[in-house]
Amino acid sequence: MTSSQFNAKGRLHHLLTLADLPRDSLMALLERAAQFAVKPGAAAPRFDLLTGTTVAILFFEPSTRTRTSFELAARRLGAEVITLDLAFSSTMKGESLVDSLYTLQAMNMDLFVVRHGEPGVPETLAQHALPHVHIISAGEAHISHPTQGLLDVLTIRQHKRDFEKLAVAIVGDIRHSRVARSAVQALAILGTRDIRFAGPAELLPDDLAGEKFTNMDKALEGADVVMMLRIQKERMQAGLIPDEREYSRRYGLDGARLKLAKPGAIVMHPGPMNRGVEITSEIADGPQSVIREQVGNGVAVRMAVMAMLMSK
Amino acid sequence: MTSSQFNAKGRLHHLLTLADLPRDSLMALLERAAQFAVKPGAAAPRFDLLTGTTVAILFFEPSTRTRTSFELAARRLGAEVITLDLAFSSTMKGESLVDSLYTLQAMNMDLFVVRHGEPGVPETLAQHALPHVHIISAGEAHISHPTQGLLDVLTIRQHKRDFEKLAVAIVGDIRHSRVARSAVQALAILGTRDIRFAGPAELLPDDLAGEKFTNMDKALEGADVVMMLRIQKERMQAGLIPDEREYSRRYGLDGARLKLAKPGAIVMHPGPMNRGVEITSEIADGPQSVIREQVGNGVAVRMAVMAMLMSK
Amino acid sequence: MTSSQFNAKGRLHHLLTLADLPRDSLMALLERAAQFAVKPGAAAPRFDLLTGTTVAILFFEPSTRTRTSFELAARRLGAEVITLDLAFSSTMKGESLVDSLYTLQAMNMDLFVVRHGEPGVPETLAQHALPHVHIISAGEAHISHPTQGLLDVLTIRQHKRDFEKLAVAIVGDIRHSRVARSAVQALAILGTRDIRFAGPAELLPDDLAGEKFTNMDKALEGADVVMMLRIQKERMQAGLIPDEREYSRRYGLDGARLKLAKPGAIVMHPGPMNRGVEITSEIADGPQSVIREQVGNGVAVRMAVMAMLMSK
Repeated sequence: MTSSQFNAKGRLHHLLTLADLPRDSLMALLERAAQFAVKPGAAAPRFDLLTGTTVAILFFEPSTRTRTSFELAARRLGAEVITLDLAFSSTMKGESLVDSLYTLQAMNMDLFVVRHGEPGVPETLAQHALPHVHIISAGEAHISHPTQGLLDVLTIRQHKRDFEKLAVAIVGDIRHSRVARSAVQALAILGTRDIRFAGPAELLPDDLAGEKFTNMDKALEGADVVMMLRIQKERMQAGLIPDEREYSRRYGLDGARLKLAKPGAIVMHPGPMNRGVEITSEIADGPQSVIREQVGNGVAVRMAVMAMLMSK
Repeated sequence: MTSSQFNAKGRLHHLLTLADLPRDSLMALLERAAQFAVKPGAAAPRFDLLTGTTVAILFFEPSTRTRTSFELAARRLGAEVITLDLAFSSTMKGESLVDSLYTLQAMNMDLFVVRHGEPGVPETLAQHALPHVHIISAGEAHISHPTQGLLDVLTIRQHKRDFEKLAVAIVGDIRHSRVARSAVQALAILGTRDIRFAGPAELLPDDLAGEKFTNMDKALEGADVVMMLRIQKERMQAGLIPDEREYSRRYGLDGARLKLAKPGAIVMHPGPMNRGVEITSEIADGPQSVIREQVGNGVAVRMAVMAMLMSK
Repeated sequence: MTSSQFNAKGRLHHLLTLADLPRDSLMALLERAAQFAVKPGAAAPRFDLLTGTTVAILFFEPSTRTRTSFELAARRLGAEVITLDLAFSSTMKGESLVDSLYTLQAMNMDLFVVRHGEPGVPETLAQHALPHVHIISAGEAHISHPTQGLLDVLTIRQHKRDFEKLAVAIVGDIRHSRVARSAVQALAILGTRDIRFAGPAELLPDDLAGEKFTNMDKALEGADVVMMLRIQKERMQAGLIPDEREYSRRYGLDGARLKLAKPGAIVMHPGPMNRGVEITSEIADGPQSVIREQVGNGVAVRMAVMAMLMSK
């Protein structure tokens, strides 16, 4: 079964999830993104692949970082960009989401980037969009964050060779993390079998294939990649995890712990980091950290997705 | 008497109201807008008519839809656009409105698009603007919304031939509607004589020429155009109209009622719609609805107004 | 000692303060700004000096006026501009300021414009920025507002010849004013020795060289330049200054007072003005006022700073 992100010819038309992405499509996106990747300090070149098109960025959840990344991606491809920050006015004057789509489509918008806290919103928009219109999910509830998954595997690929032989440890609140879900899906497509989840028992996932650990040290042993997740302070208030200090002691990544992983293991974090909680500054800014590369790859991946979806 | 929207040579210099617009000017705007209109799905072409000019969009009332329409119009003409969303900070640090105009003019802004809940604001700005600066009203209290009136008659014109023979029914809270006022003015200029207003007695207008009905069915009989207005929930809270269900029963447009109008009558709505209140989804999405065309025409009309005002 | 705004070759790399700016650098900036200055009514030409670069505007304090000025400056030089209005969400999801810098740098941003209410923020960003990245302060606590100081002396220079012979009176809350501090620094570099401060005793500065007056009339005698500051209503609530009426009587500029200054003295105000409090409308809009010229010069000065910092 293919999901609604493919068109009648089986071509990727929207990007809603990585779950059912064929390996070929994923590889093509990564190749394309690698071409768009720019080193920090180098000028970011402009392209005209999207000249004449209008991209609408609809964020129903606040996120300066991801919104800016999509905005830059679209503008660097030459698109006209309209950003609608709907985080604090969840509707356009009480209009339904689908009517907002109809309205913006009628203004000749070609591509919608949407982030929403409710499950199903990107899918609903894809179902109601005009045939030539594309939808990209920029985060769907706790379910999916496909461009984050892509930037994660692009970053790993820049440092590690064979995805089939990788051991990847993901640490933190995996149960509520769309970042983890999309990363696991991307890794699975690329053949990674050794995926370990570490965190407090209540935050380990029910629905993901991988080995579960409440002891972080065991999960790190021999890992090639250590992916730290941001801990939400709300979880502490809800009593799901211990206080910051205790959390940090049990699930924070520091120099001693990182030595349990393979030499040359890379450290990832989707940002924004709680320094001193899930990760120490020593590690975040250290030689094994690829955290800033992830951010740069984020723009490249989003450019690649837009370019692929909109190419004729 | 000509209003202050004309310059000494009688040329349209600002767009504040349709009330005293000569038929020639109105027709020229519609012709121009028709050239800018783009089908949904087609690429929206870019022009360079406004290249080198700066457009300031000053919205003192929130409106994602209209603001986006003006922004796209200006950008598609090549202008630099600065959007100042002043809805939640009604002043620029306590500065008077006219001082804000002076300040922005001093930064070489050439055209101001202004929406404000108080009557007289666009006129005041026009009086204080530098000679080469243009003001466009994007909504003035309950008084005027000239680009909405233009897009309404542009949409009618794409479907109906002779404005002089049209019967137009406008339904809802006409008394408080700048949309209705501007539409009626545009229709009057084009020679439409048969205009009917339907709604609860307290929401019928005192100051507009047309036949008034509290029975919606009678207003619809033989109508060529049915223009539904958005009902404001605030009016219900104020006790001016009955609850949603009762309002819908008496003044909602559904399939049965639409049959009272002429076959081929078109259905309009300025948006955003309260589906199930003033209009059913069957009608909103049905074959007689031109609601999405109105949105697309909105961008075209705003491009036409900007291009006309700023052409030498 | 040179501050951290110069690079190893002694070249201006950031603009954080005017305090230690060499006279040559200041003059070069003014010359450049004069080339960018445009008369009101004239079209603002576009340049491509910053084409291919991305400018991030980070405002942690609200300011429509200054933010718009920087935005226009960057866009008129051809830069891609990302504006992050952080006034009401002082952090990017709890991320530290320096991590936000790292994140945005990783997206290939080249220049940051920052306004912040805490002292030291521009300096901190400059210390952590990548070598090719530039920081411009757009206002730092009560300490510094260097582009305002530049636009002030640029405006004076358009009207007065010899800075060494000027008498400049600054009136209002000088103690808490970054505008006054930067103006005084710029004037000192240009050789102005006769600087007078007038205001209630508690609002006179401790740390600036100049003659202090609690009697405004005495400060105005023979002045070439009268620089009025905006009075903050918060100071009244705090009891630091008398009520508006009394303040206006003692420290407001009106026609009678202005006659104490030299004939041909110019009147300045950084805006936004409290008309009728620190300045009467007669003076604000009168022939000696250069207040709107200051605004236009603001854009020109910001273009000059960006162009100078980013030129190879």
